[in-house]
Amino acid sequence: MTETVQSTTDVVALAEALIACPSVTPATGMVFDCLEAQLAPLGFAVHRAISGEAPDGPVENLFAIRKGPEGSRHFAFAGHLDVVPPGEGWSSGAFAPEVRGELLYGRGAVDMKGSIAAMVAAAAQIPAEAGTISFVITGDEEGPARYGTLALIEHMRAVGEIPDLCLVGEPTSVHRLGDMMKIGRRGSVNIWLEVAGVQGHVAYPHLADNPIPRLVAMLAELDALLLDEGTDWFQASNLEVTDLTVGNPATNVIPAKASARISIRFNDLHTGESLAARVTEIAERHGGSARPVISGEAFLTEPGDFSALLAGAIRAETGVEPELSTSGGTSDARFLKDLSPVIEFGLCNATMHKRDEAVAIADLEALVKIYRRVTEAALSV
Amino acid sequence: MTETVQSTTDVVALAEALIACPSVTPATGMVFDCLEAQLAPLGFAVHRAISGEAPDGPVENLFAIRKGPEGSRHFAFAGHLDVVPPGEGWSSGAFAPEVRGELLYGRGAVDMKGSIAAMVAAAAQIPAEAGTISFVITGDEEGPARYGTLALIEHMRAVGEIPDLCLVGEPTSVHRLGDMMKIGRRGSVNIWLEVAGVQGHVAYPHLADNPIPRLVAMLAELDALLLDEGTDWFQASNLEVTDLTVGNPATNVIPAKASARISIRFNDLHTGESLAARVTEIAERHGGSARPVISGEAFLTEPGDFSALLAGAIRAETGVEPELSTSGGTSDARFLKDLSPVIEFGLCNATMHKRDEAVAIADLEALVKIYRRVTEAALSV
Repeated sequence: MTETVQSTTDVVALAEALIACPSVTPATGMVFDCLEAQLAPLGFAVHRAISGEAPDGPVENLFAIRKGPEGSRHFAFAGHLDVVPPGEGWSSGAFAPEVRGELLYGRGAVDMKGSIAAMVAAAAQIPAEAGTISFVITGDEEGPARYGTLALIEHMRAVGEIPDLCLVGEPTSVHRLGDMMKIGRRGSVNIWLEVAGVQGHVAYPHLADNPIPRLVAMLAELDALLLDEGTDWFQASNLEVTDLTVGNPATNVIPAKASARISIRFNDLHTGESLAARVTEIAERHGGSARPVISGEAFLTEPGDFSALLAGAIRAETGVEPELSTSGGTSDARFLKDLSPVIEFGLCNATMHKRDEAVAIADLEALVKIYRRVTEAALSV
Repeated sequence: MTETVQSTTDVVALAEALIACPSVTPATGMVFDCLEAQLAPLGFAVHRAISGEAPDGPVENLFAIRKGPEGSRHFAFAGHLDVVPPGEGWSSGAFAPEVRGELLYGRGAVDMKGSIAAMVAAAAQIPAEAGTISFVITGDEEGPARYGTLALIEHMRAVGEIPDLCLVGEPTSVHRLGDMMKIGRRGSVNIWLEVAGVQGHVAYPHLADNPIPRLVAMLAELDALLLDEGTDWFQASNLEVTDLTVGNPATNVIPAKASARISIRFNDLHTGESLAARVTEIAERHGGSARPVISGEAFLTEPGDFSALLAGAIRAETGVEPELSTSGGTSDARFLKDLSPVIEFGLCNATMHKRDEAVAIADLEALVKIYRRVTEAALSV
């Protein structure tokens, strides 16, 4: 009972300290100092580095590791210290953490400084002899993410510290803590489409070449594509047309160019490249061109030992049976999957990115226990 | 022979005087003073008025009439004194008329101060006893045209001066003077289309409602419409999509609204209203809305006495057999057709609206003769 009270106090204080450091993407300086000050006393060796150049950098990152005995297993916690901008209308300061009733308020409370505090509190309760624990923490997850977790992975490869399992602390719970973990994420590709024509007067269409009908036919074909019907673990891949642009103010002019943009969220039946090739073929067949930008590939950590171990910890601490999901947007797990099996699990996401972001103190306490159980189990497998 | 030389001198001087008065749409003041000074000595009663308010007004117009004996026929010349902006790159001043070689240069030389000068020179050669001649001249034909010829028609109705025939001096000739007259014009309607949806995140399309696929399907159906296959005198009606607008910069956002604009040029098998209703039905069936703006209805002066009389005059003076056409954009004949049969015939249009707009002096001279013959014939029918 004494130990529980101790950890409870800790995790709220740890979370408050992190929230009190403003860290809108890209996070820098103070918030990393704060985390370093939490980890160093626990025996972690902290490596901090700044990577990349404008426009997508520089980005600050932190890799901390506490090595277990030779040959022991390595369990990694991953996450981000950057937060989205607070926006308007907060009841208290977004970067002035405040406990009101049973909730701790502040930007990052659930996404994801609260989770990082729980990771630190969990690690504090595990003896160094149990195995190797690391923290893979970026300052740019909500932004372009080009020099964030990717740079951390490069560093980990360079120093030869590859984890056996990795847990990302994104807020995956929906209605109550523990009801959902993410064992995969869909990939994402945006494709800019363009059709060129010949400008002219609407009264003399034979002297012009209107690009819009070709773009319309192209989009109709793309919209009718059935990419797949989903898999055991993924919903069906989905294509959305997200923008149309001509920009022709003259009612009597046939424009010279018409453009569109599509966004495809896809499961592991596809790759960004295979979809880009398919869309490009359709675009070119309609006399247009396609410029794809792949944001991330789909990934799946097949249900198995890792998900069972995590589900067991969740069940033991909360009595909730977690759904194994692959829904939603992307996360840095899309990069970390190249190092080891990776699963995401964290706090309830109802208030993330919103004003008055808040976490239940009881959830923070329970998450410490879950993370502790998971870590112990992962290191002893 | 003496008379011919006389009229030749006159028409060039008359045209130069008009061109020397800058009159970019809407034309006002000086250029009307100039025309009034040309017509008054010929016995014309000149009525000038300013109509309308911002944004499409005020507009200056001129109606001049020289009445023949009681019961005589009434022949109207119609046209406009406003010109399009000169633009860049002129070899000499756009409003500094200059004869170089066989050409008279200046903005409005063919569209249509040269034609108005020819009308004045022709009228000068016809005795008042021959019948009633009038000039229906607006200062806003190249612009919105809301308070131009429409206001003149209102005035003519008010004073009870309705012509038997009306000739509009637009530059209808293509390769050589006389090769084309316009016995009709297509109508024009622009329609703004809009589809509303519900904004959302591309990763959660079930929580959003993308309006773009409905707009694309609507446009595909509109683009596939076969409005007609043309008539004896008109080419097929034509629909062009002229703009697409979403304006969504965020790659991961499904937009709340998608818009398009179409332009239909239509023959006399349709009215602006019938087409607007047809497009509105299609738009609404796809969950969208349509906002039509009718620029002008189609009109046709069926080939007959008037076109035969004009063709005869052209043939007699130039040896050219004119084509009876309904091609091209709109003109103020779309309004004048409500008063009397109307045909358009004037100079070669190769340089209209371009830099170094110029008219062949020989064409100006020949046009005076054609207009004189037409007037004489029209008054003596």
